Amino acid sequence: MIVIGELINSSRKSIAKAIETRDTAFIQDLARKQEEAGAHYIDVNAAVSENEIEAIKWLVEIIQEVVNVPLCVDSPSAEALDAGLSLCKNTPLINSITAEKERWDEVLPLVKKYKAKIVALCMDEAGMPNSVEDRVRVADILVSKFEAEGIPQEDIFLDPIVKPLGVNDKAGMEALESSLAIRNKFPQIHIVPGLSNISFGLPERRLLNRVFMVTGAAFGMDAFILDPLDKSSMSLLAGTKAVLGKDEFCMEFITKVRAGKVQA
Amino acid sequence: MIVIGELINSSRKSIAKAIETRDTAFIQDLARKQEEAGAHYIDVNAAVSENEIEAIKWLVEIIQEVVNVPLCVDSPSAEALDAGLSLCKNTPLINSITAEKERWDEVLPLVKKYKAKIVALCMDEAGMPNSVEDRVRVADILVSKFEAEGIPQEDIFLDPIVKPLGVNDKAGMEALESSLAIRNKFPQIHIVPGLSNISFGLPERRLLNRVFMVTGAAFGMDAFILDPLDKSSMSLLAGTKAVLGKDEFCMEFITKVRAGKVQA
Repeated sequence: MIVIGELINSSRKSIAKAIETRDTAFIQDLARKQEEAGAHYIDVNAAVSENEIEAIKWLVEIIQEVVNVPLCVDSPSAEALDAGLSLCKNTPLINSITAEKERWDEVLPLVKKYKAKIVALCMDEAGMPNSVEDRVRVADILVSKFEAEGIPQEDIFLDPIVKPLGVNDKAGMEALESSLAIRNKFPQIHIVPGLSNISFGLPERRLLNRVFMVTGAAFGMDAFILDPLDKSSMSLLAGTKAVLGKDEFCMEFITKVRAGKVQA
Repeated sequence: MIVIGELINSSRKSIAKAIETRDTAFIQDLARKQEEAGAHYIDVNAAVSENEIEAIKWLVEIIQEVVNVPLCVDSPSAEALDAGLSLCKNTPLINSITAEKERWDEVLPLVKKYKAKIVALCMDEAGMPNSVEDRVRVADILVSKFEAEGIPQEDIFLDPIVKPLGVNDKAGMEALESSLAIRNKFPQIHIVPGLSNISFGLPERRLLNRVFMVTGAAFGMDAFILDPLDKSSMSLLAGTKAVLGKDEFCMEFITKVRAGKVQA
């Protein structure tokens, strides 16, 4: 299971402010804590900053001073992605591309230029997918397009597009079944859901997000953008790996318990 | 999702003592609290009592004074089962039968006599099952034998036999895949795992049991013998029902949140 630490995102007020005031200590502390808690990537998003390009360059540089894990460079702007990626020391993850022509054409060159891994949303010109079949169809298109560019399945982090349960009470199963179908079709691909979409508009969102993560892992999702400082989520994820037989002799689980990183 | 409240079990020291001293208030309080927390059945077990037959009769009588939900009468002794069942006001659940000839011959008559529902362990003369195929084979035998006696699938609570992850790290997937295969073959049957077996010998058992419950529900399990006073488990179960699309408009989840019964 791959954890992408979501906390350094300018849509959060404390982060927007830290970017504005160039509060290096605050950002570095958050980066360090996420790595220490088990994040495999640190998401870096400066999209709501006034000068996004300068902001993301600053973030990438100061974060890399204190962590060893690679970054997930996250922006709707291809120019900002390029600026952030140009400074990455380890193979980065780009967040994100779609099968829509415009987005594809501006982000694909960056994937190739930086030999990056890539989050790909299951969306094409038809817009948001409306069924399991829709998602599998767009996943097919995406994998073929990447393959034609020499990008292997294992570099793709496919987001199956999660919709809120509060709008459609079958939205969870739709995403889960899509994930299973995509997993069976493309064994090497990574599947990374937008976890928190599931609970939009409902109470006790964190609980629903956690349940969706555990069931999602059972249906083939293997990467999660989440708050690694949320000990409940990280504990459930460690337990899920063990229950699903992906933790040999449960040694990772036992080690995490001993390190105080798991709590019921 | 069906919850069977597990707390009134004489293997727990406090219960053994309450039975010994005939502490009516203590037992009734625990029965009432489990019903209030959402249990659909109250398990009643007096197996380690000195005079089990007198003990189980006493338990069944005093519990029924304070709760409306049916009981799950639980004993290795057919005589004790009969004594308990003879006093049940609502259609009880019997815990348990197997496909082993001796157990089948002594418990089946009670199922018919009391028109009871029945927990059936996936075991036959060959002993504990060792594979998914083994479990499906024994489930087939059990369903056929019950069918021949006029007992429908919906009265059967099949226990797929859960083994500890600590002994075999594939034990979780084996039970989950068995559950899915049995669910697909017998859509009307109930599937009730021995949840806590999964974590035997490992640390943070409650966490592993909860993860196994959530993943189990995603693989077709629909009844759980658990502590209904454990708010984390009950919250996760409510969330799981919503995420799996088994809670229309998420109304049950929202109602439980409003009643303070769900917490992240």
